[in-house]
Amino acid sequence: MTTGANILLQTLLANSIDTCFMNPGTSEMHFVAALDRVREMRGVLCLFEGVCSGAADGYARALGKPAATLLHLGPGLGNALANFHNARKAHSPVVSIVGEHSLNHLKYDAPLSADIETFARTVSEHVRTCRNPHEIGTDVSATIADAIQPPGQVAMLIVPANLSWSAAEGVGPVIAKPERQVASGDVVRRAASLVRNPRTALLLGGSALNPRGLEAAARLSAATGVRIYMARNVARIWSGRGRFQPRQIPYFPEPAIEMLRDLENLILVEAKAPVSFFGYPGTPGWLAPENCAISLLADLDEDGPASLEALAQQCGAASAAPAFGHEPVTVPDDGTLTLDSIGRVIAAHLPEDALISEEMVSSSEPVLTHLANAARHERMPVTGGSIGQALPVAVGAAVACPDRKVLALEADGSGMYTLQALWTMARENLNVLTVIFANRRYRILDIEMRRTGADGFGEIANNMIDIGRPDLDWVSLAKAMGVSATRAATIAEFHAQFRDAVSVNGPRLIEAVVEEG
Amino acid sequence: MTTGANILLQTLLANSIDTCFMNPGTSEMHFVAALDRVREMRGVLCLFEGVCSGAADGYARALGKPAATLLHLGPGLGNALANFHNARKAHSPVVSIVGEHSLNHLKYDAPLSADIETFARTVSEHVRTCRNPHEIGTDVSATIADAIQPPGQVAMLIVPANLSWSAAEGVGPVIAKPERQVASGDVVRRAASLVRNPRTALLLGGSALNPRGLEAAARLSAATGVRIYMARNVARIWSGRGRFQPRQIPYFPEPAIEMLRDLENLILVEAKAPVSFFGYPGTPGWLAPENCAISLLADLDEDGPASLEALAQQCGAASAAPAFGHEPVTVPDDGTLTLDSIGRVIAAHLPEDALISEEMVSSSEPVLTHLANAARHERMPVTGGSIGQALPVAVGAAVACPDRKVLALEADGSGMYTLQALWTMARENLNVLTVIFANRRYRILDIEMRRTGADGFGEIANNMIDIGRPDLDWVSLAKAMGVSATRAATIAEFHAQFRDAVSVNGPRLIEAVVEEG
Repeated sequence: MTTGANILLQTLLANSIDTCFMNPGTSEMHFVAALDRVREMRGVLCLFEGVCSGAADGYARALGKPAATLLHLGPGLGNALANFHNARKAHSPVVSIVGEHSLNHLKYDAPLSADIETFARTVSEHVRTCRNPHEIGTDVSATIADAIQPPGQVAMLIVPANLSWSAAEGVGPVIAKPERQVASGDVVRRAASLVRNPRTALLLGGSALNPRGLEAAARLSAATGVRIYMARNVARIWSGRGRFQPRQIPYFPEPAIEMLRDLENLILVEAKAPVSFFGYPGTPGWLAPENCAISLLADLDEDGPASLEALAQQCGAASAAPAFGHEPVTVPDDGTLTLDSIGRVIAAHLPEDALISEEMVSSSEPVLTHLANAARHERMPVTGGSIGQALPVAVGAAVACPDRKVLALEADGSGMYTLQALWTMARENLNVLTVIFANRRYRILDIEMRRTGADGFGEIANNMIDIGRPDLDWVSLAKAMGVSATRAATIAEFHAQFRDAVSVNGPRLIEAVVEEG
Repeated sequence: MTTGANILLQTLLANSIDTCFMNPGTSEMHFVAALDRVREMRGVLCLFEGVCSGAADGYARALGKPAATLLHLGPGLGNALANFHNARKAHSPVVSIVGEHSLNHLKYDAPLSADIETFARTVSEHVRTCRNPHEIGTDVSATIADAIQPPGQVAMLIVPANLSWSAAEGVGPVIAKPERQVASGDVVRRAASLVRNPRTALLLGGSALNPRGLEAAARLSAATGVRIYMARNVARIWSGRGRFQPRQIPYFPEPAIEMLRDLENLILVEAKAPVSFFGYPGTPGWLAPENCAISLLADLDEDGPASLEALAQQCGAASAAPAFGHEPVTVPDDGTLTLDSIGRVIAAHLPEDALISEEMVSSSEPVLTHLANAARHERMPVTGGSIGQALPVAVGAAVACPDRKVLALEADGSGMYTLQALWTMARENLNVLTVIFANRRYRILDIEMRRTGADGFGEIANNMIDIGRPDLDWVSLAKAMGVSATRAATIAEFHAQFRDAVSVNGPRLIEAVVEEG
């Protein structure tokens, strides 16, 4: 018998969605059973739902196409929401399938009953519940269409158990990949009229940061002198030797305001007008000057690289981009391990085309500054500010790109939210090297406490952001989930361990015990 | 300056809410800073929000009064939802405080912006957002009033950061504890007219299962012969030697239907009419016979014990309850560790008045059957079916009752959802002994796969419920978070380790490697 579960899987596969990150329960058993009949679908088991949602985000960022997730009822979806929030802010396409009680069981308000659609709406405008087994194929296709609609969405399909187990027919249609619009001639000419003004800047986000977009932006900058900036909270940053790297809007509002203070025109290319991450007493959240005109070259769902190319053409910046130099990376022989020395080691030994999943929070700037001198790579930062993203995103990226090294740069506090990702790395033998930055604090909150104008930490408040006592032993956590791990407290130790770890395939973890000022 | 954060804390304390399970972020820094000025509030740091919500549930179950939780914006609340779902189904009063961006930052749709009220509504009908610093006290009191409204609710208060940092005044009022109604004379007489019918049963839930309710039920049963049953998915079960223990409605529908099949009258006492946990093809979800009359002695928000006493009085069952015998517990000297032998060891050595947080899932029945012969204790099972409850609930129970031993009986699969609870046990030196039942399967799904009529596991499906490969090493996980731990694979090992662990204070973990049939 062809069941709804079969149709569901076949429709996903017809649309080239062949990977599903899952944490199933009773209401999803027919989906699981169907995996043996529809064998092209790869199921990846995660021991916590936030790993599933983060992995789907990482997969989408790495490949630009959706994976599916399979979750168990409202609370299972609840556990996935934080990383779906990040996926949403990254504009990652995800097809989220959530099991529901069989339709005739819903009226009983059984213990696991909950309003799944409300759970789903917290992170998605695209929420659909299957009602008829013969419509499951079209429902799946419609969900895929929502997910891949530019710039990319988390789309939700709620599937009652009886629709999975009923006889069904009708594999859903194949959804054509939508075209992204290129800026019109008028828009390009208007932008061209602004770019020779030294008080104009372009702000790039989304796919405008890909190699094609960067190349056009670099030509524009060289030909016209226009400033090019990179938005914060972007899904994917192409970086490394030989690549043009725009300055990024700083995290804190004061330096961001300083950077933008003389602007008269800000032209957005797949970016939103810059705002600060948090509001603070007495500091504006809007970062551009009040009288700065904001205009669009390409909206979030449009084609930034092609629009930049059209603008470069219009500005006579059609010739080849300038070469970008880089500085040789030096690593001190030894000494206490610092963020600076970690950044140097990573830059010196990063394999070509590595994917970096990054959530170092307070530790990021001193490390990332060295990556411009590393081999070409792509970096996936935390987008929605919900920590616990880096390890799951690394899982998804490694499943998506088995031939590339994935590096997860994770803070100790953040890592604890979704540490179960390590088990999936071991189970699937994923090529992920995780570096844990162990400062044993919610260090960012040290900084934020002062910034928000709270009158400083007393002893009790200090205790609430100190995640030492007891110290977390990340080496043991990793080994307990099947991942080889070592600890480094000196430059020489970290250097040797990192060099060794990037030279082998499979999951590894280094706990870097860092001295911070 | 008295800030909104101060007023918030003072209003909680004025209402005897002096414990807050927290995972704060930037928007909650003023609340954290205020802890040093309002020092009667105990902040308990958790490294994952699902630990906070589960701990508040355990605290409320143990003491019958609310704790507060403090969470960071929408995604932080998202991580707490699964255990809030369980708390909701347990009718645990909880005051959930969620930080929000400052009000004038909301319009910017910053990365962490999300619709927090929608997150909150997934688990609560009581959602309130503060808008004015001078109303924060009355808002907190109104939230407390919602939380403690019988039978108990998860009530949500969303607090924008600027209301925490602004000057404020007006500590909110003290909310009187609401009275619960006792069944009226008419209701009691109607029930009394039914109880001598041998096809009548009483179904007890909620506080009707407390010692006073059980005592009245035992007298009723002895005097009238009426059958007494216990609902499933109740928040707290008083059990052990000398206590009347009603038979519980079985988990699976077939034995439950069999148990109830001859009933003509089912009288509910703080319980809902029984339904099955999941729907299955061809099996009814409604467990009582179709023609069985359902009536109420006490609704969920009414006073079950007093209503049972009134009924006993009406039935002339006013004399003392009969004594309940128990069987001596025997433990085999040694042998392979089984669920039966674990149950015997626990029953033999359980300290008087222990609190048991229980989520053994497929392992529960063979263990629990022995607890009727253990010392008096209270057991808190999983209520809403969302796994990952037992370790957090144990945290909350141990904070609530520092003089009692807390035993967490946890399955390996379930434990992984919220394993961060172990760190808080270590940090706070909580008197919790955790036993992990390591069968290295989502074993319940083995059973459910067959039940749902899926045509069995192929190799791939089997892989999705097998959580071995790699095996989780719970001893190392616990030690890595500061909890002493040992592994037991034989009866003699488990016996010695358990006896030793219950004799000392502080957190311990035993990984029980179990052979299952």
